[in-house]
Amino acid sequence: MSSKGSVVLAYSGGLDTSCILVWLKEQGYDVIAYLANIGQKEDFEEARKKALKLGAKKVFIEDLSKEFVEEFIWPAVQSSSLYEDRYLLGTSLARPCIARKQVEIAQREGAKYVSHGATGKGNDQVRFELTCYSLAPQIKVIAPWRMPEFYNRFQGRSDLMEYAKQHGIPIPVTPKSPWSMDENLMHISYEAGILENPKNQAPPGLYTKTQDPTKAPNSPDILEIEFKKGIYETPAGTILYHAHLDIEAFTMDREVRKIKQGLGLKFAELVYTGFWHSPECEFVRHCIAKSQERVEGKVQVSVFKGQVYILARESPLSLYNEELVSMNVQGDYEPIDATGFININSLRLKEYHRLQSKVTTK
Amino acid sequence: MSSKGSVVLAYSGGLDTSCILVWLKEQGYDVIAYLANIGQKEDFEEARKKALKLGAKKVFIEDLSKEFVEEFIWPAVQSSSLYEDRYLLGTSLARPCIARKQVEIAQREGAKYVSHGATGKGNDQVRFELTCYSLAPQIKVIAPWRMPEFYNRFQGRSDLMEYAKQHGIPIPVTPKSPWSMDENLMHISYEAGILENPKNQAPPGLYTKTQDPTKAPNSPDILEIEFKKGIYETPAGTILYHAHLDIEAFTMDREVRKIKQGLGLKFAELVYTGFWHSPECEFVRHCIAKSQERVEGKVQVSVFKGQVYILARESPLSLYNEELVSMNVQGDYEPIDATGFININSLRLKEYHRLQSKVTTK
Amino acid sequence: MSSKGSVVLAYSGGLDTSCILVWLKEQGYDVIAYLANIGQKEDFEEARKKALKLGAKKVFIEDLSKEFVEEFIWPAVQSSSLYEDRYLLGTSLARPCIARKQVEIAQREGAKYVSHGATGKGNDQVRFELTCYSLAPQIKVIAPWRMPEFYNRFQGRSDLMEYAKQHGIPIPVTPKSPWSMDENLMHISYEAGILENPKNQAPPGLYTKTQDPTKAPNSPDILEIEFKKGIYETPAGTILYHAHLDIEAFTMDREVRKIKQGLGLKFAELVYTGFWHSPECEFVRHCIAKSQERVEGKVQVSVFKGQVYILARESPLSLYNEELVSMNVQGDYEPIDATGFININSLRLKEYHRLQSKVTTK
Amino acid sequence: MSSKGSVVLAYSGGLDTSCILVWLKEQGYDVIAYLANIGQKEDFEEARKKALKLGAKKVFIEDLSKEFVEEFIWPAVQSSSLYEDRYLLGTSLARPCIARKQVEIAQREGAKYVSHGATGKGNDQVRFELTCYSLAPQIKVIAPWRMPEFYNRFQGRSDLMEYAKQHGIPIPVTPKSPWSMDENLMHISYEAGILENPKNQAPPGLYTKTQDPTKAPNSPDILEIEFKKGIYETPAGTILYHAHLDIEAFTMDREVRKIKQGLGLKFAELVYTGFWHSPECEFVRHCIAKSQERVEGKVQVSVFKGQVYILARESPLSLYNEELVSMNVQGDYEPIDATGFININSLRLKEYHRLQSKVTTK
Repeated sequence: MSSKGSVVLAYSGGLDTSCILVWLKEQGYDVIAYLANIGQKEDFEEARKKALKLGAKKVFIEDLSKEFVEEFIWPAVQSSSLYEDRYLLGTSLARPCIARKQVEIAQREGAKYVSHGATGKGNDQVRFELTCYSLAPQIKVIAPWRMPEFYNRFQGRSDLMEYAKQHGIPIPVTPKSPWSMDENLMHISYEAGILENPKNQAPPGLYTKTQDPTKAPNSPDILEIEFKKGIYETPAGTILYHAHLDIEAFTMDREVRKIKQGLGLKFAELVYTGFWHSPECEFVRHCIAKSQERVEGKVQVSVFKGQVYILARESPLSLYNEELVSMNVQGDYEPIDATGFININSLRLKEYHRLQSKVTTK
Repeated sequence: MSSKGSVVLAYSGGLDTSCILVWLKEQGYDVIAYLANIGQKEDFEEARKKALKLGAKKVFIEDLSKEFVEEFIWPAVQSSSLYEDRYLLGTSLARPCIARKQVEIAQREGAKYVSHGATGKGNDQVRFELTCYSLAPQIKVIAPWRMPEFYNRFQGRSDLMEYAKQHGIPIPVTPKSPWSMDENLMHISYEAGILENPKNQAPPGLYTKTQDPTKAPNSPDILEIEFKKGIYETPAGTILYHAHLDIEAFTMDREVRKIKQGLGLKFAELVYTGFWHSPECEFVRHCIAKSQERVEGKVQVSVFKGQVYILARESPLSLYNEELVSMNVQGDYEPIDATGFININSLRLKEYHRLQSKVTTK
Repeated sequence: MSSKGSVVLAYSGGLDTSCILVWLKEQGYDVIAYLANIGQKEDFEEARKKALKLGAKKVFIEDLSKEFVEEFIWPAVQSSSLYEDRYLLGTSLARPCIARKQVEIAQREGAKYVSHGATGKGNDQVRFELTCYSLAPQIKVIAPWRMPEFYNRFQGRSDLMEYAKQHGIPIPVTPKSPWSMDENLMHISYEAGILENPKNQAPPGLYTKTQDPTKAPNSPDILEIEFKKGIYETPAGTILYHAHLDIEAFTMDREVRKIKQGLGLKFAELVYTGFWHSPECEFVRHCIAKSQERVEGKVQVSVFKGQVYILARESPLSLYNEELVSMNVQGDYEPIDATGFININSLRLKEYHRLQSKVTTK
Repeated sequence: MSSKGSVVLAYSGGLDTSCILVWLKEQGYDVIAYLANIGQKEDFEEARKKALKLGAKKVFIEDLSKEFVEEFIWPAVQSSSLYEDRYLLGTSLARPCIARKQVEIAQREGAKYVSHGATGKGNDQVRFELTCYSLAPQIKVIAPWRMPEFYNRFQGRSDLMEYAKQHGIPIPVTPKSPWSMDENLMHISYEAGILENPKNQAPPGLYTKTQDPTKAPNSPDILEIEFKKGIYETPAGTILYHAHLDIEAFTMDREVRKIKQGLGLKFAELVYTGFWHSPECEFVRHCIAKSQERVEGKVQVSVFKGQVYILARESPLSLYNEELVSMNVQGDYEPIDATGFININSLRLKEYHRLQSKVTTK
């Protein structure tokens, strides 16, 4: 059978993408396995050997840590954005970074296809594929979990195990944990199994990257973080998030910050829904970066039981004017001005009151 | 000397407003002392006696806890808004509640004037006075800290002490702590002294309402909070904030939530800058309340070392569809649809890529 | 052949939907033809006869003018929204109104299917189908122009003509105009043919609902429009839009209006992209309607050469205070207050200047 | 009497600022008259002579047309912003441009003071003074119409006339028109007199820059406007506004445009309220300018009876893809994808319907 051409597969070393690797070969593709290192715990050399053994024509293991931090995590930290006011955008941020390199490899290697093991539900597939189409419109994406010939054949884990046995794919010796993890140097998240029922509490023993707060050390760690338009070594996302928020409020004009806040909401939405590589997200990132030009300084934080406490901060560009806020120093400030300020602002409110009475007494 | 008329003074029982009470009398006003109970620790009966002793014509001590929770804290919790992404709006929320009752008393008692002890700097005076003007446009506000005849006379704490001695105002026996506190049933905040320098860490021993996390008990407290359009007993703001955020994300359509989020930003800004009683804040509150109509359910939280952890949640109106998110169940969902969704969304991105190349290669 | 069941077809009486009617029958469906009257010029009785002649089991001609005006046009006018700052949402508004009734008929008649003649490109199909799925999740939509068995068979107008001849479908005697029109009581729009090239000017003779301005009468028409939460007889959308904008600015608090403006942008986007019947659009409509509670009064407009000029307005709830704006009357207003207002606002700007110099001189 | 120092007065040549010039001298200031040319109809040399005759120490007449167009009008046109959805920002734009030069002159001439003739009501004084304080925090502004010693002395026009007679200030021979005008090369506006009553129609004969539409020529003017990041000769604001809107929609990604629209609303608000020279307005202008990088091309417009009609447009960077929108060409587009797109979007709507029924049937 002549080859249908080359496909670059985002390979994790796990059961699913190992099966996909073999299945793609079966379908007549030359498979190039690609594994991105974005800080997850992984035996990369082991994975390389495994991929080659399963028939990968080539294997690329790419260390993306630096670009992940500089080009993806850092803009996200600057945006101060949480999805739904709570979640750092860990998984969402990694996808466009990983897929961008995958497209590069495909172009370099002359591969017309890329493939991934994301399920046919949810945003992960969208993040992956929009990146591909945006950066290389001619590319074809093979998404096995959306192809009937694949998902009808592999209806459960036992089908995958069976297939693995038949094709010499090493089977994990430990039973699979009931959740699937997504890990990178910024965060770790869990999915599936009992976590699908919102009534259930997370089981003890879930923590790998951090510690269960009830078991964490009883004395805090103190860190000092310096902000200066670039960060190479990054502590966990949550610490950065809080420290940046603090130095930003300390150095950014409050009205600029309000506008930037609205842009941050948009940024989070775009990243979450897979539009990192889009004109609007590029535009928003540019605007947010512009807002950061004067955000610099040092923040001292204490990390205790998994929580971040800001201790103090310092900046040559602080907007904080001690004289102005002090309750003791009068300075240039005239209290009578506050009266004028209040009176002018109350004009509109008084008018409104006048009208409301009118409406009420009608 | 004939009276200039009655003034309702927001009285705290402390040195400042005690001096103001006597000073207003000196200026020829009949003083009605008013003390709002919004959950702060205070010996209210002691304060009543003190005010009468200093010459107050009448004293009103009003328990506003219920209306503070129901009409002010609750809308703020619903808004999920933090000022500058960090601060619950504790102080800002209390002002319009306290001032509203003060205006009511003034109208009932036929007083043309109201007075307060807020400094001539910052937002507190604004919050106070805009409430007054908005609810009673004809009222006159006496703000001693903005009147030269007052602030020139009382240039420091020692001037107040001196005046107190001369006029039989009881002087606090303990030396004043270096910070001033603002407390209510939702929060406590500190100002001034060494806290004015952002380089300084907060001193140990500052915690009164909560505990220093390093000294808090080593086992978590578990709470269950039920949301149902009304709350009478309120735990601390932070717990409510997180629990509400959780049940909201669980029961509110995500697109409604995004719009509501923008309104929440506006709400926080308005409350912080003193515009609670304004047509725009009324409008925003109405819209946010509308968004909450289906937000109900129970949230189980764990409070440990001053932090809030969500354990589980349950709601008859959950938008969470286990079948839809499950990685095992196919349900009504067709994977091929995701392909179409991605393709349609990528059309625009491909076009953009085409154009960008054009620009670049020019 | 036994019937596959009933389908309610949105029927226009034209060549396309006539062919679809016959084709659906061919596929084994019982066809119920449905024609909505939303103010377009049409011989409805002629269309009924035609549908019956072509084999429709039933024909429903529904006059939706009143609900189109009250429930769709009116909220759009209140939103003051233009798509892309220019277009009234004529076509986008009609779709959810028409499709809602179609779903009602399907439910009443026990039909499992609905069908329409919208092309497989663009937003019209989306507006149509999201309405159906939102109001009746179990319904099945048959969109022939997205079905290969249909669009491969009918690749051009000549294929439709050929099919029409074979099946006794009356063929229009006049050659088709080079554009397709979408008309309702609010607007008319044109598509296709030479209009697809943006370099081309619109051909003379395009105007049917209005007149070419260069040929319009040389004297203006004067109208008086009264706003009072409801309108039964509606003049063209553009006139309403401008008149409403005027009375709104005259009676709505300017800060409320700014918030409402943001909601209006969202509304336009949602309507344009087909999400009229969605929780977020419902929410936005509710909020906008709330903002209109005090918007009432009379506006006098002049319509001349296709343009709308506001002449004067009057309202019992005007926020316009002649005394306050007058350059001659002093009133309650103290000029010194403006000084305070300006000074307080300049504090932040002065600080910013101080910092900027710091940055520049570094 | 020794001089109090120099003051740079924004001088118009009219009665008011002529009186202010003389009055400032009376108060002991050396007056430097400054007259900005931003395209208004004015005999500048006549004004120069008059100022010198009235005792101005120096007179500066500055042609700001180029910078007004390039730095102020052009960003406003790019923002597509209308204040309250209707007004181009003519007057608001001119103020920061005029005041900026005034501050420059003051700094160059070593003057500590600047002065203007704006009334003590409204936004004009704010726009003027915030510019001064923002660019030169140490400067002192003399605003006679807010100084009791001035406004108590000049309570009406007759007081000014009287003062003029006494001090040899030439008195206008024609009776003053009942409105005051503000004119620049972008627009003209009218204030006061009978226009203060919103019930009154504007009197015939008000048009000076344009023509009463009923009297305008009966044939349209056709213009072609080319956009390319800079414009030196500017037609009226309205034409530019519409032409730019058209080319923007033609070349800017629609999602970028939505974000930019929100920024445009903010821009209009900031400019209207006097915050052109503020960190937030600088930030917004930067972001809007960024959005314009690919906005270029030619627009052909017809101007007829005071209205602007877009005829056609052309751009090398058009996002308009004829193939994609064409009803006849299939191209790369797969109709089945639209089905997937609609299905995925309807998932959420169906869920919502399910829940709503639950709520309703409870």
